[in-house]
Parts: sequence; structure tokens; C-alpha cells
Amino acid sequence: MSIVFDWANLVSDRLAGRGIPAADVEGPLADRFRAAMEDVRAWRSEGRLGFLDLPDDDALPAEVRARVADWTADVDDVLIVGIGGSALGAVVLRDALGGVRWNASDIDRNRRPRVHVLDNPDPDTVRGLLRDLDPDRTAVNVVSKSGSTAETMALFLVVRAWLESEGVAGDVRRRLLFTTDPERGALRPMAEAEGIAALPIPPDVGGRFSVLSAVGLVPATLVGADPAELLRGAADMRDRSLGDDLARNPAGLFATLLHALDVDHGRAIHVLMPYADRLRSMALWFQQLWAESLGKDGRGPTPLPALGAVDQHAQVQLFMEGPHDKAVVFVSAPFDADVPVPFGSRDPAALAYLADRGLGELLDAERRATMEALRTRERPSASLELGGIDAYHLGALFMLLEVATVVGGALYGVDPLDQPGVEQGKIFTYGLMGRDGFDPPAFPPPDEHRRVGLGD
Amino acid sequence: MSIVFDWANLVSDRLAGRGIPAADVEGPLADRFRAAMEDVRAWRSEGRLGFLDLPDDDALPAEVRARVADWTADVDDVLIVGIGGSALGAVVLRDALGGVRWNASDIDRNRRPRVHVLDNPDPDTVRGLLRDLDPDRTAVNVVSKSGSTAETMALFLVVRAWLESEGVAGDVRRRLLFTTDPERGALRPMAEAEGIAALPIPPDVGGRFSVLSAVGLVPATLVGADPAELLRGAADMRDRSLGDDLARNPAGLFATLLHALDVDHGRAIHVLMPYADRLRSMALWFQQLWAESLGKDGRGPTPLPALGAVDQHAQVQLFMEGPHDKAVVFVSAPFDADVPVPFGSRDPAALAYLADRGLGELLDAERRATMEALRTRERPSASLELGGIDAYHLGALFMLLEVATVVGGALYGVDPLDQPGVEQGKIFTYGLMGRDGFDPPAFPPPDEHRRVGLGD
Repeated sequence: MSIVFDWANLVSDRLAGRGIPAADVEGPLADRFRAAMEDVRAWRSEGRLGFLDLPDDDALPAEVRARVADWTADVDDVLIVGIGGSALGAVVLRDALGGVRWNASDIDRNRRPRVHVLDNPDPDTVRGLLRDLDPDRTAVNVVSKSGSTAETMALFLVVRAWLESEGVAGDVRRRLLFTTDPERGALRPMAEAEGIAALPIPPDVGGRFSVLSAVGLVPATLVGADPAELLRGAADMRDRSLGDDLARNPAGLFATLLHALDVDHGRAIHVLMPYADRLRSMALWFQQLWAESLGKDGRGPTPLPALGAVDQHAQVQLFMEGPHDKAVVFVSAPFDADVPVPFGSRDPAALAYLADRGLGELLDAERRATMEALRTRERPSASLELGGIDAYHLGALFMLLEVATVVGGALYGVDPLDQPGVEQGKIFTYGLMGRDGFDPPAFPPPDEHRRVGLGD
Repeated sequence: MSIVFDWANLVSDRLAGRGIPAADVEGPLADRFRAAMEDVRAWRSEGRLGFLDLPDDDALPAEVRARVADWTADVDDVLIVGIGGSALGAVVLRDALGGVRWNASDIDRNRRPRVHVLDNPDPDTVRGLLRDLDPDRTAVNVVSKSGSTAETMALFLVVRAWLESEGVAGDVRRRLLFTTDPERGALRPMAEAEGIAALPIPPDVGGRFSVLSAVGLVPATLVGADPAELLRGAADMRDRSLGDDLARNPAGLFATLLHALDVDHGRAIHVLMPYADRLRSMALWFQQLWAESLGKDGRGPTPLPALGAVDQHAQVQLFMEGPHDKAVVFVSAPFDADVPVPFGSRDPAALAYLADRGLGELLDAERRATMEALRTRERPSASLELGGIDAYHLGALFMLLEVATVVGGALYGVDPLDQPGVEQGKIFTYGLMGRDGFDPPAFPPPDEHRRVGLGD
């Protein structure tokens, strides 16, 4: 059980003078961090950081297990309907703990139930997915704190009608599970009126900080992981990440060093680069957390997901030789088991170096090589080293990044818990959809001279 | 048949004075573009832009069709083994034309053969995938121009041994297809010695510009598309994109305006944001093309993939209220058919605005609303509007972005066709893998004080 943040390659003595001066970490940055922790404690005392208390809900794992067992007793497939913070964590847990790959689909692994996350109201996707599933053998988890998210509720209405399609037997309500606010929102009264099972998203937990609530515990359970382990890892990391001593605080170092790289050193692009397919979607979850929490008031870094070794053939050229505007955080973990590379006398001699090596050995060598290559070009990087890809370590990693994000909010001087910038788009959408009380936007007139192409 | 680049919302008169001054486009930017086209023509006359001629290979589509029919006659699954430019285009074509979704896996759609892209030497992925496939019913396409790419060749050796596993009948060679340089590299002699079918990647076509060669024509054919249509769309766009008149050249405008937004206006992050799940991986293909071609000599923009409407709940907060360092290019296309949202009297009145609307209508409203919301915050955006998601339009879009990329190279003053920054990492990897003639890197000693976390 270990999760280590190695930040040695962020420091100037490793980067020929670029990067963060070593003396800064003990002096000004430690002071900055302590001041930020004052804000964090204030937010906590105001009851705004409910996510910190999620690991203490000892009863929830058993409740989730029981609910899931009942709700999926007779199904082959589960659809999780949500978007943003209500979907990304489920994808991470499914991919990391269920062993589902990112770009190889259409395989029946004889694992029941299969978990599908429906997060986009794309009619082509929805039609294709529902055509392939059996409405008599599918359970649906609708995840929306407010019960008013347009995409989620539209998808819910479509999926419910499909569950109720002609010829389907059984009680549709038994195959629905809502994850929503325990008191407010449109889903809660529906659950009560119709007897639909519901699990809570605590009122003081925002969507993008909700993965350690039922939002994430349900998908973790669905793919066979122990939800209590998720919380145990999160609790251990929380207890390690709330202290004022920067040098001993992994979440504090993550936030303080990346913030300093941005505001003091012009490195506003923060790359998260796991070297494991199962952790690929973790970078997308982090992207939402970091971008939506910190990107406001004209400030905020840009999180950039990457994947090793794939991005060595895509983005690494830019990381190596482009502008000095990035810092890379590598994420690594041991593989379940390596796969040996067979090599024989008929094979090209130029590939003999692969003989008796493993794919995982190659991937690990590539990670270390890329990190060192970046260092020789004075490009800062850090590492998150996980002791395994399991519920415990994922829980710890989620918590580390969530704490880092609220510390980041304090450092950037923004409120990490709101997202005021998305309201205007929602209002315009309501207007275009003809919702009562909303006008469509007054678009500027089209400019045909600025439309160019084939058939223009 | 249409593909239109709408750049009106990049211009200052739409952005309260921010963005690109309208007068610049006719004056200095048109001059810049004309000078860049001189470089492009020089590169072409030096024989470096072979990708421009790929659409003229009238014989290739029929050859690919015949090869694919023969090679996949008795299989259920096809594995495409490649990385970077040898994989990303295949993923785009499979997802866009085969209707495969990004995050919903494990479904048997009764489509034969199923197409899997194996691009990462991750042992957990490989073990899981090979466990689920039948070595007697799988065909493999190995894609590597040089035949020396470590990841691809290691995966090839693993997959070949699996095809040859004990008990498997038939001739393994018949189920292999190499896509590689016609004259050089390690795969070509192996193909000739063992009688393995091979298709060419022309010597003057680099990996990231190869999607309109057999590299992309094979996966397009596998999912049932017409490879000739891919080339026809590309030819039409090429013929529209090589002229000196900036105002009439969609690729020229794409490159020149995004370059100006970076170097003149501090918008170095270029977001490509399709509003269609089927086009999601197009943003990853573009990311490789733009990053690896332009990111060098301390210069180069950072391409950032996004997906509508999902990223309205993840990245759009940052796009709306973060630093003025981004430009967004939306990508849209009509859906195959919309899915109506059923709404009844039992449903919450707050959702009544969804009644009689479609999911696609909602998604389209969200795209227009988000673009307009960005504009009201003085955030520049542009649109690529496709007349459909089919082989013709994908061919045209690939070509538009490829031409834009070489124009971008000329504008940034870098060579868009090389990738010198990835060599150091390869050399270090060889050293760590013990390849003859390569030493492992001299890592700095570990610094235990800079390693912090659980179990540190």
C-alpha cells in the first residue's frame, strides 16, 4: 500500500537552473501553502468541503452492495446515465478496476453485468447502444445531484421509455436506481412517488468531488471491487494531506509546486500522463476537476491528458521541444502480470533486444526514458507512483487530487467549488430549446464571406 | 457534400475588439499566408509532401478491398497493431464510420469483423484482449513504416506467437497483413521471405500524414466504408486548399488564423471540439498532427481535444473564464437520425421543455449556445461544419487539416515533417532495454526527501 509523489525533477538543481529553485520550497512556497491551508480550513468549517468526510461513512459500502445486488440481480447490462462529475468517476473505476480497455470495444468478456456510461445526448450513440441491449435485462443508474441537468434528464426519459417498451415484462422501477441529492431536485420526489431506489449525494458534496460518494461506489461495486477499500484508501490519504508541513504533504506539494510553475515560471499547462491503459480515463477525471475548479476570474492552469507510451508518438515532441509552458506529472503502477516477448532465429536481428523482455518492462523503460529525456531538455516533471491499480490506491489518488484542487483554489485565489462560467451556455440552451422564461440568444447575423470550403 | 470553415467568431468585430482585427486578414495575414505557400510549394517540389498525391492513386482502393476480403474471409476479429500515426487514423475511421462508441465497450454488435486497435504495449490490455479473442478467427494488420518501432514490433511478436499457439489450425501467414514501406524496413523482407501480404506506405509519406494511404484505407474498408470515397473527398479538398487566395482557402484560413491567434494574440492553446461521439477520436488524431508537426524549436501551439456536450461539464468553465489563451474550433455534422425525448404527465414540469424535442436537437442547441456564450465573453471560436459523417467528408477533413498543418509549419518557421525531439527518449529506452550499442541514461541519484506520500 503506497502512493508516492516524487517531485525531484521539478526543482532547479535537476534542470540546469530552470524549474523551481530548491530554496523556494522551504521558504516562500511553504509560506504560501500555509496561507492557503487557512482558506481550506475556513471552507471546511463553513461546511463546503463535504468530500473530506465521505470516507468516514462506514455504513455506505454495505448499503451500496446490498442495493447493487438487488437492483442487478437479473440483468446483463448496466447503464450509468450522467455527465461530467456524475460520469467521469464511473468511467475511471470501470476502466481501472474492471479491466475495460479504452479503444478496443465490442468484446463480451463474460463478465456480468457489463457497465456502460451514457454521458452524451448523441442520438447516434444512444440508438446504437439501445439497439444492442435487451430492455428486459438492463438496469439503469441515473446520476444527477440536481435532477435538472438537461443532458442527463433527456437521456433518462429516453432510456426509461425504452425500458418500458412493448413486450417488456417485469417492474421497470426495480431496475432503476437514482443517485441524487437526498432532499432537493427533481429525481428525489419521483423516487418517492414511484418507489424507485435512491442513493444520496450529500448536499455539501459538489458533482466533481463526488466520486467517493455513492456516485463512485456503485460502479466500483458493479465491476467487483470492494467499495470499503476505496474509502479506506481515501481516508488514509486525507489524513496525510491536511497538515501544514508542506514537505510532508503530498497533496500540498502537488498543488503548490504546480501553481508555482504556472504563476512564477510560465508553465500554465499541466499534463497528467499515466503509463497504463487502465488509468487513461483518470487523466480525464483530473482534467475536469482541475479545469472547472481553478479556471475562473481570468486565472487557472490548463490540464492536458496524455497516455504513455502512446503519446510519445503524438504529444511528446511538443513537450520536449515546444515552448517552456508545460509541466508533466507521470502516473505509474505495477501491472498485474507481464507478457513476455517471444523472439526467434527467424526474426530481424535489430529486434533481438526485445528477446526475453516483457511488454510491461518495455513500457516501464519508456516512462523512465521519457522522464529523463524531458529532464535533459530542462522540462520539469513529477511522478505519482501507485503501489497497485486497485480500489485502495484509486481511493487514495482521488483524495490526493481533490485535496490538491481545493489547495489550488486557495493558491490561485479562486473559489474551487463553483462553476459560474457554465451558466450562460445553459441559459442560451434553454432559450434555443424553447423553455418557458428563456429567450434564445441574439446571434450576430451570419457572415457568408467568412464561411469557406467545399460547397460553401 | 459540403465542409465549411466558419471563422466569423475569430474576428474582432464579433469580440468587442478582441480576436483578430478584420483588416489584418486581407492585409498582413494574406501576405503571411502567401509567403508560407512559397515554402509549401518548395517542400512539394522537393518531394516531401507525398500525402498530397495519395488521393490520385486510383488503383489502391480496389487493391485494398481485394486484400481485405481475402485476408478476413474466415475471421471474427481484426487486430490493428500500430502506434501514433499508424493507429490514430484507424481509430478515427472505425469510430466515425463503424459507429463504435468511445466509452461503452463490451457489446457484440453482430458486425464482422470487429476491429480492435492495439497501440500500447500495456501487458494488462494485451492479456485481456487476447484472452477474449479466438486465435483461429482473428486477422492482424501490423502497421509500421520503418518496421522498427519498439512498441509495434514487440506487440507484433506477442500477437504472432498467440496466432501460432498450440492447437491453432490453418496458415497463420494468411491472416497477417503488413502495412509498411515498399522498400525499406524490417517488415518488408519478412513479408517477402514468408509470403505475407503487404500494402505500401509510400516513402515520401510520413506516419502522421499517412491516413489516406493503405494505413487508413484498410480500417475504412473493414468497417464497410468505400475507400474510394475517402480519396474522393480528400482530392476535392486538396484542390480547394492549395491556392494563394487566403479568403478562398479553408486550410489556409485554418492555419493562418490559428497561428495569428497564437503569435499575435497569446492564444497558444487550440481546442478541437466535435459535437458528436463518432468524431471524438478525430480530435486525438488532430492533436498528434498539430503537436508533433509544429511543436519544435521552442515554438508551437498546444492542441487540446474536447467533446461536446460532455466538456461543457468539464473544460468549458476554463474556456469561458480562464486566461485568454485559447481558441476553440467546433466540429459539427448532422446525425444519422434523431431520438425523440418522451415526456408525460407524470414527469417534472421543469423538464417539459424537452417534450417533443430530440437528443440531437438538444446537442445541436448546446453547441450553438456554447459558441455564442464564448463569444459574449470575447473568446474566439470557429466552426468546421461537415455535411455528414461518411468516408467522403472524413477524407476531406483529413486533407484540410493536413494541408493546414504544413502551412502552419511554414508560418511558425519549423519543419512540419520531422520529429527530432522524440529521438532522445528512444535512445534512453534502448539503453534501458539493453540493446547493443546503447547505454542506459545516467539518472540523477534518487532524492528521498522529495518523495512524499503514503508508505513513502
